[in-house]
Amino acid sequence: MKVLILAAGLGKRMKSKYPKVVHKILGKPMINWVIDLGKRFGEVGVVVGHKAEIVKGYLPMDVRTYLQEHQLGTGHAVMCAREFIDENDDVLILYGDVPLLKSETIEKLNEIHKSRNADVTVLSFIADDPTGYGRIIRQDGRIRIVEHKDASESEKEIKEVNSGIYIFKGNFLLANLDRLNNNNAQGEYYLTDLVGLAQNAEALILDDPIQVSGVNDRIQLAQLESIAKERILNELMLSGVTIVDPQSTFISPDVVIGMDTVVHPFTIIEGKTTIGEDCEIGPYTRIIDSEIGNKVKVMRSELEGVKIENNVSVGPFARLREGTVLKENVKIGNFVETKKSIIGKNSKAQHLTYLGDATVGEDVNVGAGTITCNYDGYKKYPTHIKDKAFIGSNSSLVAPVTIGSGAIVGAGSVITEDVPDDSLALGRARQTIKEGWAKQKREAMENADNKK
Amino acid sequence: MKVLILAAGLGKRMKSKYPKVVHKILGKPMINWVIDLGKRFGEVGVVVGHKAEIVKGYLPMDVRTYLQEHQLGTGHAVMCAREFIDENDDVLILYGDVPLLKSETIEKLNEIHKSRNADVTVLSFIADDPTGYGRIIRQDGRIRIVEHKDASESEKEIKEVNSGIYIFKGNFLLANLDRLNNNNAQGEYYLTDLVGLAQNAEALILDDPIQVSGVNDRIQLAQLESIAKERILNELMLSGVTIVDPQSTFISPDVVIGMDTVVHPFTIIEGKTTIGEDCEIGPYTRIIDSEIGNKVKVMRSELEGVKIENNVSVGPFARLREGTVLKENVKIGNFVETKKSIIGKNSKAQHLTYLGDATVGEDVNVGAGTITCNYDGYKKYPTHIKDKAFIGSNSSLVAPVTIGSGAIVGAGSVITEDVPDDSLALGRARQTIKEGWAKQKREAMENADNKK
Amino acid sequence: MKVLILAAGLGKRMKSKYPKVVHKILGKPMINWVIDLGKRFGEVGVVVGHKAEIVKGYLPMDVRTYLQEHQLGTGHAVMCAREFIDENDDVLILYGDVPLLKSETIEKLNEIHKSRNADVTVLSFIADDPTGYGRIIRQDGRIRIVEHKDASESEKEIKEVNSGIYIFKGNFLLANLDRLNNNNAQGEYYLTDLVGLAQNAEALILDDPIQVSGVNDRIQLAQLESIAKERILNELMLSGVTIVDPQSTFISPDVVIGMDTVVHPFTIIEGKTTIGEDCEIGPYTRIIDSEIGNKVKVMRSELEGVKIENNVSVGPFARLREGTVLKENVKIGNFVETKKSIIGKNSKAQHLTYLGDATVGEDVNVGAGTITCNYDGYKKYPTHIKDKAFIGSNSSLVAPVTIGSGAIVGAGSVITEDVPDDSLALGRARQTIKEGWAKQKREAMENADNKK
Repeated sequence: MKVLILAAGLGKRMKSKYPKVVHKILGKPMINWVIDLGKRFGEVGVVVGHKAEIVKGYLPMDVRTYLQEHQLGTGHAVMCAREFIDENDDVLILYGDVPLLKSETIEKLNEIHKSRNADVTVLSFIADDPTGYGRIIRQDGRIRIVEHKDASESEKEIKEVNSGIYIFKGNFLLANLDRLNNNNAQGEYYLTDLVGLAQNAEALILDDPIQVSGVNDRIQLAQLESIAKERILNELMLSGVTIVDPQSTFISPDVVIGMDTVVHPFTIIEGKTTIGEDCEIGPYTRIIDSEIGNKVKVMRSELEGVKIENNVSVGPFARLREGTVLKENVKIGNFVETKKSIIGKNSKAQHLTYLGDATVGEDVNVGAGTITCNYDGYKKYPTHIKDKAFIGSNSSLVAPVTIGSGAIVGAGSVITEDVPDDSLALGRARQTIKEGWAKQKREAMENADNKK
Repeated sequence: MKVLILAAGLGKRMKSKYPKVVHKILGKPMINWVIDLGKRFGEVGVVVGHKAEIVKGYLPMDVRTYLQEHQLGTGHAVMCAREFIDENDDVLILYGDVPLLKSETIEKLNEIHKSRNADVTVLSFIADDPTGYGRIIRQDGRIRIVEHKDASESEKEIKEVNSGIYIFKGNFLLANLDRLNNNNAQGEYYLTDLVGLAQNAEALILDDPIQVSGVNDRIQLAQLESIAKERILNELMLSGVTIVDPQSTFISPDVVIGMDTVVHPFTIIEGKTTIGEDCEIGPYTRIIDSEIGNKVKVMRSELEGVKIENNVSVGPFARLREGTVLKENVKIGNFVETKKSIIGKNSKAQHLTYLGDATVGEDVNVGAGTITCNYDGYKKYPTHIKDKAFIGSNSSLVAPVTIGSGAIVGAGSVITEDVPDDSLALGRARQTIKEGWAKQKREAMENADNKK
Repeated sequence: MKVLILAAGLGKRMKSKYPKVVHKILGKPMINWVIDLGKRFGEVGVVVGHKAEIVKGYLPMDVRTYLQEHQLGTGHAVMCAREFIDENDDVLILYGDVPLLKSETIEKLNEIHKSRNADVTVLSFIADDPTGYGRIIRQDGRIRIVEHKDASESEKEIKEVNSGIYIFKGNFLLANLDRLNNNNAQGEYYLTDLVGLAQNAEALILDDPIQVSGVNDRIQLAQLESIAKERILNELMLSGVTIVDPQSTFISPDVVIGMDTVVHPFTIIEGKTTIGEDCEIGPYTRIIDSEIGNKVKVMRSELEGVKIENNVSVGPFARLREGTVLKENVKIGNFVETKKSIIGKNSKAQHLTYLGDATVGEDVNVGAGTITCNYDGYKKYPTHIKDKAFIGSNSSLVAPVTIGSGAIVGAGSVITEDVPDDSLALGRARQTIKEGWAKQKREAMENADNKK
């Protein structure tokens, strides 16, 4: 099957500088929801038009695009993609602004299409208020579509309407596209008219019309976000994931989560993220494009592009950036940032720390306030901290530098040279005391105040 | 027109030490919602009573107040403000605990009032359950109001009821106020009774009764917050702002946001805040009284009283306090606090930093863990960091101090004196190594453990 | 009365490695909701079965458990607990997966049971769709229960159904338990059958069926969480607490909050927490097992096991851990962590600080970036900071250490020895300047770049 996605529209009511189909639902542009769906059924082509260059920027490499320079109706859009159509393949027509269609629905539509050997099979639904929609007229086992404006009074009573989603036989489509005309009020070419030209048109009634809801303004965008989210969360819950508060939990469609993991409120999980079993995720946590093992706790933290092994604890108030790898049993605490760093098994960095471009061994303790000074204003340099090292609090490790295995860095030290294994490194001044100085200062300040 | 707001009530069911009308909706006291509405139509007077001094503390300077010492009904409240009424001006009666009335509604009410030359025009609405409300009796093109307890069985069927909001002719009001009596069960003077005294009373049916919902307890307060919020968010969405999750987004009525800005979940924007176009705000962000340019990202941060130019990135986990100014292309990262500080174009402070009373030039790099020591226990002092300076990580800049243009401060330095342009400043001890010390300590500790 | 809780079921649709009844609602396992309810009425016994050892781990010491090795129906479960039943005591039957029953309901049920001297009193409710439930047949002032499968067409019309919650007379129960049989499709022993054996069975119709909703899958778990939460928040609001957004506020059943405290959005309050009057809690705040006085502000912070006196301000971005005590007027600011520390009256730690195992006196100023170095890799040591001391920014206090009263620690100091009262302590290197060094470096880097 070939899948042709119409995505040339303007989306005026979005009130946007960007084309409608690149607006996002659960962090994923609408057009990509439709493309991912289409790819399950065959080769995908996209008809672009309004701000075509922007839309193209969102398309995967293997999708072919066709330009519809002037938007003269759905029929015209398909004409612009004529070379995509093969007479031996069926063509599924989808829309870039109808993101929530399910693949089961297309499967059913295709079953009917195949089993009845139809020229075209329409996806219809029952509308509470069918005003404006094309009505599906079922007569003598066949169907045809009457546009609202052309419908008789009794036809207007019909509540089964056209969703605009069709499967066409390729040869039927090629043979009849040119028979479409634009003799109508809008002066547009309508794909619907092809149904009237078919010898054998069929329709499947969709029992869940939300699947064919389109987005015309940002209120509808928010509504579909909410529906998409509920759908994903319900699936996760039924598969054994606890979602404490579905209302305040946002999980993107490409996320995988294991059994008995609990997702706490105010949590966002996006991109290609995988989370294992028995984890506690959230509250107040955002995770993007990360891989997380089992029995991991992530509280009130930001993670992007990280890999975490089993039994790790992160947060609250941690930020793990791209390239962070946490091995088993690692503990990352509050006000800690990591970037392009590997932290070995059982190691800890629990307070007010920045680890950038660092390789930390096993059983290392990184004290509060430790900073890897990885940048000299020109280049970034690596820090190596070997197994069982102890980094005293408030230390500055000036990279490139290596702290040896089992070595101790004294609190408050600035370390500019490598520290040998098992040694103590200090880089701090001796303490001096000026007795009574504070008292004198206090009295001087009080005198000054009194004089005012 | 004069606008008289009744705000003397006790609000017993609020169970509060504070008067009802100062409780807040979207961060703004209810009385201020009503005053801001009233001001669009004319001079505003407020009748205060219960805990009058507290209510007065919330009123703008140009609002006149009248004391209703004993709360003897709405008619009595207006009597207490008799000197506010001018016989040549209409008087609009509003309520301090009815915050969601729209100005379009008052405009329509006033149009009817004017066009029909009415003595009084009542705002009515259709109640599903009218029990307890005064019914609007429409007869011979005129209206009168029958209180629930006085209504006949057939009158009780009437669902059009009195909202309590009126426009009176000033002369009618002055001429008839004294005709009110308190011959009723509660012993109170009711404004409603004036409708019966009018030659020409009119009514406008409000088609959106939520506008005249009052707040009697904190559950209703939360409900109106939710409605107010939805109203504001819908307007923003239709104007071209993406609100990813309206449910978890709180935007106050005086906030302005530009086209194609995306507001992510768990975000609160309050006070007189302006945000430009193409920004990404949130998730987990609170912004109060701030001015933000275009293409600005603010993730998981707290901003209050700040000014941010275009292309700036803030957060996650940043706190920008009063008096912070960020120029174009500034980057503020995680665990960074700024206060009364100006950060110049292209400058960065990305990790674990406190900048207080600082003036930072352009192209400056403030290393991780930098702290401006702006307070000596007695006074605050300024720090100046000039263009292209590089502040090494974990540095302490003891104010008052100036870091020269192009100067470098070595990591871990304590800087107590000015640093000349283009120089290197160090304020740290040389590193020393005690070989084997850590091993000896480890062995000693192990021996001690073994002896136990 | 004796209270027998059936909690032996598998909960297959939970898709969980853990037994159903230990899944949580508002942070409290379902079984504990039921036990806490049961304890108000008498001695509690729990019938465990599926993964009994895990369930037992959640039970308080004073609860007796009975093992139902094979789950052969509710009647069988009670048989397994036969020794818990006393012929002189009534027995209330509850379920470990029905957590939202109210104690008022049991009181009413018991009143009917007592006043009518019933053998068994059934809690019934009106089901919109009674399919599958046992119908309550009321005839001649008596009741009996007909199972769905045995009901006649006219009986199937009956909407009053059995909730499965009963009060039995102990002697009736003991006398009739053995008369139950498992001659049914499932081969199970049903408690319901006892109603048919009673001389005098009564039923109370529950007007709020949500109370007897059970949890079968995680979608239902989330739904009951939402209902439980709304119930608690409504009670709080009616008692004088402002909940700005009930949707995004989670308060556990054992939390107490005083009048005029405002709880802002995105807030979670759990465990045995007490909060006083006139506080501002949230937004973005989680508080667990803490005791908080009056007029306290806690913004965007995590608190667990802390005690806070009046007029304290915490956050944003603070983390107060177990054993933290904040005395009156303390201010804890952003990126500050405390653990097992007492902070005296009027003292402040406002930025980027870690206080662990510290005792801080009154009127102390802890500068930005201060760290108590309480751990040497082997043991934890205490820090004492006495009244009116001033700790300069970026200081490291190497414990065990005492900072004297009125003493000053210079910014950036490493303090390894006690500081006497009223003295100045410095532990930092003198600043040195290398004029032109930065310029030379810049030129060298530029040359290197040019050569590439």
